[in-house]
Amino acid sequence: MNIMNVLIISAHPDDEVLGMGGTIKKMSKQGHNLHLCVVTEGASAQYLDKKMIEVRKKSCVKAGEFLGISSFNFLDFPDMGLEAIPRLQIIRKLENIIKKINPEIIFTTPKNDLHLDHKLVHESTVIACRPTKNKIKKLLCYEIPSPLINQFNPNIYENIELEIEDKINSFQFYESEIEEFPHPRSIESIRAFSKVRGVQSGFKNAEGFSLIQSFQN
Amino acid sequence: MNIMNVLIISAHPDDEVLGMGGTIKKMSKQGHNLHLCVVTEGASAQYLDKKMIEVRKKSCVKAGEFLGISSFNFLDFPDMGLEAIPRLQIIRKLENIIKKINPEIIFTTPKNDLHLDHKLVHESTVIACRPTKNKIKKLLCYEIPSPLINQFNPNIYENIELEIEDKINSFQFYESEIEEFPHPRSIESIRAFSKVRGVQSGFKNAEGFSLIQSFQN
Amino acid sequence: MNIMNVLIISAHPDDEVLGMGGTIKKMSKQGHNLHLCVVTEGASAQYLDKKMIEVRKKSCVKAGEFLGISSFNFLDFPDMGLEAIPRLQIIRKLENIIKKINPEIIFTTPKNDLHLDHKLVHESTVIACRPTKNKIKKLLCYEIPSPLINQFNPNIYENIELEIEDKINSFQFYESEIEEFPHPRSIESIRAFSKVRGVQSGFKNAEGFSLIQSFQN
Amino acid sequence: MNIMNVLIISAHPDDEVLGMGGTIKKMSKQGHNLHLCVVTEGASAQYLDKKMIEVRKKSCVKAGEFLGISSFNFLDFPDMGLEAIPRLQIIRKLENIIKKINPEIIFTTPKNDLHLDHKLVHESTVIACRPTKNKIKKLLCYEIPSPLINQFNPNIYENIELEIEDKINSFQFYESEIEEFPHPRSIESIRAFSKVRGVQSGFKNAEGFSLIQSFQN
Amino acid sequence: MNIMNVLIISAHPDDEVLGMGGTIKKMSKQGHNLHLCVVTEGASAQYLDKKMIEVRKKSCVKAGEFLGISSFNFLDFPDMGLEAIPRLQIIRKLENIIKKINPEIIFTTPKNDLHLDHKLVHESTVIACRPTKNKIKKLLCYEIPSPLINQFNPNIYENIELEIEDKINSFQFYESEIEEFPHPRSIESIRAFSKVRGVQSGFKNAEGFSLIQSFQN
Amino acid sequence: MNIMNVLIISAHPDDEVLGMGGTIKKMSKQGHNLHLCVVTEGASAQYLDKKMIEVRKKSCVKAGEFLGISSFNFLDFPDMGLEAIPRLQIIRKLENIIKKINPEIIFTTPKNDLHLDHKLVHESTVIACRPTKNKIKKLLCYEIPSPLINQFNPNIYENIELEIEDKINSFQFYESEIEEFPHPRSIESIRAFSKVRGVQSGFKNAEGFSLIQSFQN
Repeated sequence: MNIMNVLIISAHPDDEVLGMGGTIKKMSKQGHNLHLCVVTEGASAQYLDKKMIEVRKKSCVKAGEFLGISSFNFLDFPDMGLEAIPRLQIIRKLENIIKKINPEIIFTTPKNDLHLDHKLVHESTVIACRPTKNKIKKLLCYEIPSPLINQFNPNIYENIELEIEDKINSFQFYESEIEEFPHPRSIESIRAFSKVRGVQSGFKNAEGFSLIQSFQN
Repeated sequence: MNIMNVLIISAHPDDEVLGMGGTIKKMSKQGHNLHLCVVTEGASAQYLDKKMIEVRKKSCVKAGEFLGISSFNFLDFPDMGLEAIPRLQIIRKLENIIKKINPEIIFTTPKNDLHLDHKLVHESTVIACRPTKNKIKKLLCYEIPSPLINQFNPNIYENIELEIEDKINSFQFYESEIEEFPHPRSIESIRAFSKVRGVQSGFKNAEGFSLIQSFQN
Repeated sequence: MNIMNVLIISAHPDDEVLGMGGTIKKMSKQGHNLHLCVVTEGASAQYLDKKMIEVRKKSCVKAGEFLGISSFNFLDFPDMGLEAIPRLQIIRKLENIIKKINPEIIFTTPKNDLHLDHKLVHESTVIACRPTKNKIKKLLCYEIPSPLINQFNPNIYENIELEIEDKINSFQFYESEIEEFPHPRSIESIRAFSKVRGVQSGFKNAEGFSLIQSFQN
Repeated sequence: MNIMNVLIISAHPDDEVLGMGGTIKKMSKQGHNLHLCVVTEGASAQYLDKKMIEVRKKSCVKAGEFLGISSFNFLDFPDMGLEAIPRLQIIRKLENIIKKINPEIIFTTPKNDLHLDHKLVHESTVIACRPTKNKIKKLLCYEIPSPLINQFNPNIYENIELEIEDKINSFQFYESEIEEFPHPRSIESIRAFSKVRGVQSGFKNAEGFSLIQSFQN
Repeated sequence: MNIMNVLIISAHPDDEVLGMGGTIKKMSKQGHNLHLCVVTEGASAQYLDKKMIEVRKKSCVKAGEFLGISSFNFLDFPDMGLEAIPRLQIIRKLENIIKKINPEIIFTTPKNDLHLDHKLVHESTVIACRPTKNKIKKLLCYEIPSPLINQFNPNIYENIELEIEDKINSFQFYESEIEEFPHPRSIESIRAFSKVRGVQSGFKNAEGFSLIQSFQN
Repeated sequence: MNIMNVLIISAHPDDEVLGMGGTIKKMSKQGHNLHLCVVTEGASAQYLDKKMIEVRKKSCVKAGEFLGISSFNFLDFPDMGLEAIPRLQIIRKLENIIKKINPEIIFTTPKNDLHLDHKLVHESTVIACRPTKNKIKKLLCYEIPSPLINQFNPNIYENIELEIEDKINSFQFYESEIEEFPHPRSIESIRAFSKVRGVQSGFKNAEGFSLIQSFQN
């Protein structure tokens, strides 16, 4: 297996762990170079205290380093406010990150999600990755367990039997975000989703992904 | 709450437990009259031994009685062979059952399922329930956890926190069908699906349903 | 039947009558507490005369009182201008109304509607009702007959044979909005839609709804 | 306007009148040559009396002649039994009719219909019309009002203000099939559907169609 | 055939040629009056040099005149910036153009396109054409070959065997936009798309369209 | 790269070449072991002469050997007659082939295809590959250019710049099936589709695939 540059794009700090913490750890163990780009600051819509922006960034870096991510890019767009930003501005920032990191594979947020930030990060990523602009080999989206109605039907399942505990441990760095079950941001919820995706793929624990496009040379 | 006649239609013995065992128990505790109709014998495609047909029927009756089902109708169509039966024949049999039981609410198998038996039972039920023929008030489909690709997006969630253990106990009557996790017919799979549907609805354990039609007088 | 707090959310004054005037009257006769929230002022994009905003509000209150609505909340967002408002602002306002009224059931505008106001009110309602924030038991959308292409496929039909005349009478309070048939805001159009939804459900007159989510404890 | 050969394909006698009786009359007044092909005998699944097959054929011819249809082709496949006929056999019969009539435009039954006969006639027509085999210029499907769930979203609306009474009069030839409102095969249902499609297109009465394919030389 | 007023709406100068250059030429030869409305200036997001706006306009006029377009309307909204413009403003401008030109048929950009400008021009056109406002007889969208994921499934195919060279020649006026194959804006790409749409329709070269709505009096 | 067992499933002899001849050659050059399974005899519905069954098989073997396929399995189900075969029988045959070949990756026919044989081979393959039965790592479907309406939206593109001539040469072994352009089974059609898929992926020639499921250990 060749060593790849991997770019993970999330809308808020913690999307990357909830969505693909196990797969991040797995890719890290395989020796790939992992880079994270977080599009919004992920706090201002939920907390009045501005310090929470820094708190979540610190959680993100700690969790990411634990999983093996080597670089962190925070675009600092407003939480739950992406639809008010000119789309071109988001796309340009993503294009710059992509230029800098030169990834062969990109993971982004899911498409059919009522959470606008997830949807807009998804759409902006797809445009930033158009084949006339870059030579990204593979673009996928991960799943963000949500209390909102969405329709995520994975077609790629990654076995994370050996990484499920690391996924949970990394989420524990997001102290401010952990909730009680049955909240989607609870330990027990992470375990249950991981088992359900496992049942669908014949593994004990799995993470589901949906392939957007793959260009095979 | 009025006491209702409830008809549950399954394609194979065990669909009803896997799909809505918790809700069956819950409706039973509420005093409703529960009737089961199993469309195929559910064994001949999987077992060479013809006795297995009787084995699965007995499991079905035991599990059903445990959950509070009072009548059992086995249509005995061939397992994994519904597409070779004239559709009108399946519809007529369902119409007869519906006439006999006179239910106000019917639960059936899911629609977008690659398992043809599930799909055809679904379609035949919908036709047997058309409003010019009957006065069924409510028609829903339950979810059948499956290793096959399907797209079940529930819009009704039933809290089964108090019934999850009964659901699991009732499934244990299907001795021949229980498999090891991560098979979808394992105890741990049932628990994980019930938690994931719970996360989406704010309950600790839930079963998901999709409303097909409701006629409110 | 328990007495419920019901919240009806409309994008413009008259959506609630065109969409579910019969069902509002029916729920009122059943003794439920009915509350209306109108998201935009519904006039500024169509009339130069600013007074029309007040005219439409007065029509709304008269029509609503006739149907049995007991409280009216006007959010006064700009007519045909919701996409320019930060989404979070709309959601927060709806969350406040929901907190104040504490409804068990919410009705909102349809989803697949080319009229952006209808679509955005729908999406904002769904987010404001997420199960981690509230304990709304049932969320539905009603149908708004439209000259624009849309795809409303109801799964709930409410018999309004006894309320169709009340529906029409209540719409007559919206003097400025009544048009000649075959305009969708004409008396004859209301009657025709009500009969077509009736044909599909076995009633003489019906209103169609689509269930978004229901959480049954 | 050039005089065209028009082929109307229905699954059962009366589909053509319910679906497009007004448009048939209109095309007849415009001087086109109209041909009908009815795929099933349309009676055996609903009536024990075999004579009903002839009764429905006679109704069909009378109604059709009233509307201006000049030739009638009855393929006599079993009512509600098309799924048991080898598909190739249905396609071959349709190909023969198409060869004989050499139509420039074909109308067929709708696609997303739970009534299997409608769905299979639709699919077989599309295959019989593939461009490598024929030079059909235009293929459309009409709408069959139904108590079953379907999703017919027309993109072509034909003004039938001048033909609505002819449509209703022609349906009266199907004495055995007329039902009381709110049955979909009632006079009042025909009027209501025609008004609703009118509201969506700015006409007083309209019939809706969906364009499948058009090849413009 | 009657002489018609035809309005072609594009998001950027060159959409009209790439999408339907052959059909424009064909309609011109048939004697129809052809009018173009370009919604954005189509340059500012791609070129720093402001002069490029004029360059592209000049290319557009030259290409259009070559194809037989007689009037050009440039709305000058910002390139890749339509989502930040109040939607009502775009709709009003289109309504004004429609009022001025009084077309019987309108062509617009495709719907399911990740390029936001294409999507928003499509949606705004559909609203500007609602039957209560105008009497547009026919509304279609053309296809814009794109490196982005989209799902254009034409249902109308126009034979352009005699116009394919004119299409290519007209595109050559857009000197700044021509790219090397396999870029979608290359000569060889235009030829390949035209052949593929031809294969699907039995012509040697074709352009694909999707019918949005047609109102036939 | 590891050497893999690859199974290609086609409905008729020539699907495999039209759909993925370039990719077959490419995988062969990479050293993978390639196996073909053809589900129907592919001739009886189109030719009266029974000898054509053998003719097409011989073409298939010659074309396949040219591309590097090492084993050929002909299931000999009737051409255009799969819907009349008990589905379980098709599935069992595919399961046996899968057991024998033990592939890590399977390619099959597309899903949303009006050609029933393509659709049923697709569905049967998916069921035969369910994770509780096998450990297939990857399941994809290829594209079959068709005069029938279908909706193939690839998410995987394979660069076949170096294999396009081999693809065309291999198709020439199917002498009886080659047609004149613009027939989909013409040389010029193969070239045009390959360029269009190239435009969408940034290659000069490409084949498009859709990922059904991938299980990554």
